[in-house]
Amino acid sequence: MQVDGQAMRTIWRQQGDAGVFIIDQTQLPHRFVTRRLATVADAAEAILAMQVRGAPLIGAAAAYGMALAAADDPTDSALAAAADLLAGTRPTAVNLQWAVSRVLERLTPLPAAARALAAAVLATDIAEQDIGLNRAMGAHGVKLIEAIAAEKGPGQPVNILTHCNAGWLATVDRGTATAPIYEAYERGIAIHVYVDETRPRNQGASLTAWELGQQGVAHTVIPDNTGGHLMQHGLVDLVIVGTDRTTATGDVCNKIGTYLKALAAKDNGVPFYVAAPSPSIDFALRDGVAEIPIEQRSAAEVTHMTGVTAAGTIETVRITPEGSPVANYGFDVTPARLVSGLITERGVIAANAEALAAAFPERMIA
Amino acid sequence: MQVDGQAMRTIWRQQGDAGVFIIDQTQLPHRFVTRRLATVADAAEAILAMQVRGAPLIGAAAAYGMALAAADDPTDSALAAAADLLAGTRPTAVNLQWAVSRVLERLTPLPAAARALAAAVLATDIAEQDIGLNRAMGAHGVKLIEAIAAEKGPGQPVNILTHCNAGWLATVDRGTATAPIYEAYERGIAIHVYVDETRPRNQGASLTAWELGQQGVAHTVIPDNTGGHLMQHGLVDLVIVGTDRTTATGDVCNKIGTYLKALAAKDNGVPFYVAAPSPSIDFALRDGVAEIPIEQRSAAEVTHMTGVTAAGTIETVRITPEGSPVANYGFDVTPARLVSGLITERGVIAANAEALAAAFPERMIA
Repeated sequence: MQVDGQAMRTIWRQQGDAGVFIIDQTQLPHRFVTRRLATVADAAEAILAMQVRGAPLIGAAAAYGMALAAADDPTDSALAAAADLLAGTRPTAVNLQWAVSRVLERLTPLPAAARALAAAVLATDIAEQDIGLNRAMGAHGVKLIEAIAAEKGPGQPVNILTHCNAGWLATVDRGTATAPIYEAYERGIAIHVYVDETRPRNQGASLTAWELGQQGVAHTVIPDNTGGHLMQHGLVDLVIVGTDRTTATGDVCNKIGTYLKALAAKDNGVPFYVAAPSPSIDFALRDGVAEIPIEQRSAAEVTHMTGVTAAGTIETVRITPEGSPVANYGFDVTPARLVSGLITERGVIAANAEALAAAFPERMIA
Repeated sequence: MQVDGQAMRTIWRQQGDAGVFIIDQTQLPHRFVTRRLATVADAAEAILAMQVRGAPLIGAAAAYGMALAAADDPTDSALAAAADLLAGTRPTAVNLQWAVSRVLERLTPLPAAARALAAAVLATDIAEQDIGLNRAMGAHGVKLIEAIAAEKGPGQPVNILTHCNAGWLATVDRGTATAPIYEAYERGIAIHVYVDETRPRNQGASLTAWELGQQGVAHTVIPDNTGGHLMQHGLVDLVIVGTDRTTATGDVCNKIGTYLKALAAKDNGVPFYVAAPSPSIDFALRDGVAEIPIEQRSAAEVTHMTGVTAAGTIETVRITPEGSPVANYGFDVTPARLVSGLITERGVIAANAEALAAAFPERMIA
């Protein structure tokens, strides 16, 4: 996608440079800062500090981290240490473990001298594969938007609500939930996106709004409390969200608050779709609410807020009373009964076990 | 209620002092500051700046403001000017217009010399009446909490979720939604309150959490996104919220986001009650979603956040990208079908036209 009119990815290499480059997403939306990762330790730190975040991007960053490790020291012991270092940064991130394992499996049979190049090629492959999945979801999902646009009057935008950031910043490019949105925008369909602020980390207000703005996509940031009211008044045509983990039965684990928007969509007859690339589908799970453990995160994300002062400095302020405890659950589960469909790289399918099995027969667990 | 162990109201007079005292609620929870209002202009400014807020408290503050005006100049023209000044501060606040009109009606037939005392007495009456309503709601609503407590094991608290601040800070004392909570607490029932942060103005995190903490009521602040997850996992026994306006059919207009919590309560079989003192019931309305206009508020409430820095200074920071539009709807409407019951000063009643007509026959509009 674009930043200041220049085509960019969220992670990239530069001709003639051994490093890997990222956008430091912790500084968005107030400052656009890129960072060069020189070593696997740099990559691990960037993941840990959430300079890169989003399941697909974490996977790609881990693969590039392994490539940096292999370039530095391709011995078995060094690669094992690098894998441990990366895997410890975000223990619950499935894509991270998957990417690290994939690099190790590829490199282990090779002679040490061949490993650096093989790791570099594989990291690029993993990044390209992510983009391929997202482009496929975009091509399938855009049909939902086109169908709504066809029923609207000329110039009336299709209003899409999204929660959190399942945008290009969460992936290598294009995004998951945003892939159909960018596809529609590029096809000239009039669209407008309601962006849930997404407390407590504000990924909607700070990342999704920023990336939509950079592409020129019309959008409005709303508090998380607002979506129900909008849907009651016919102001939302379609909801598209991402997913961190989807069960074999179509239950969707995503950023906390997604479930509330799904309830409001159901209550108002608004279609509720989930962009679910197949790596995020966990075919071992059948009951999302019962089986998916929900990470509890730092209280500071709730008690404090970071932004930019009138003087232009970035400052963190406490917004709760001293002594008031807080709870910070990272995700919730939207039962499949509330999901209109899953936008996958193989098409838009129903959120149920039969449709998932039919679309991904090779993934079924007996 | 209590502040630092001392009994207080949100608005009061002091022996031998012609002024009226308030808590400057804009400084909470970080600073506890009281302010003396000497003139009706002070009162109007305090309402406009939201140093006092909450429908019942605004009504009381307006009545005290009229009393200050009458003490200064009891002529018809001066009182009319004072009424206009107050009425213009928060044009949509029903209680404000009601209180100002009530004072004018009382004073107009009186000789000028008798007006200051009559206004002072009436302002105190209006404040006392508010407390009476709240105490009655507390006495009725506490039975809901007692019934749940009776089914719990010893020491297991009743978990109550609330949204925004319908607490004593929004009234003269006791609060509306908090009245049953304080009553339960004073009866020794083990309770714990989940406090929705309530973006964008954060009245939950800044006011409800503070006032519960001051009374010693166990509570946890949660992002507005969290309640659905808690209810899915059996962590909420009861929801109690306030209301700004309830229709003759039981539709409830309250702080934006209330509807989403009502949907989650319904989906999980959690009782959802609304503390609705009869002055907040509008018997002229039948369809809340269609008939109640929803105020759109300043973008700055969404784009900026105020808190206290590590250095102890109060600072406002911008949290959204420059150039991203925002929308800020103040309220939403929860349809009566999602409301388990209304806690009124005349008892807990069903949220429908028949029950409302039976409880308040004198208010019915033919």
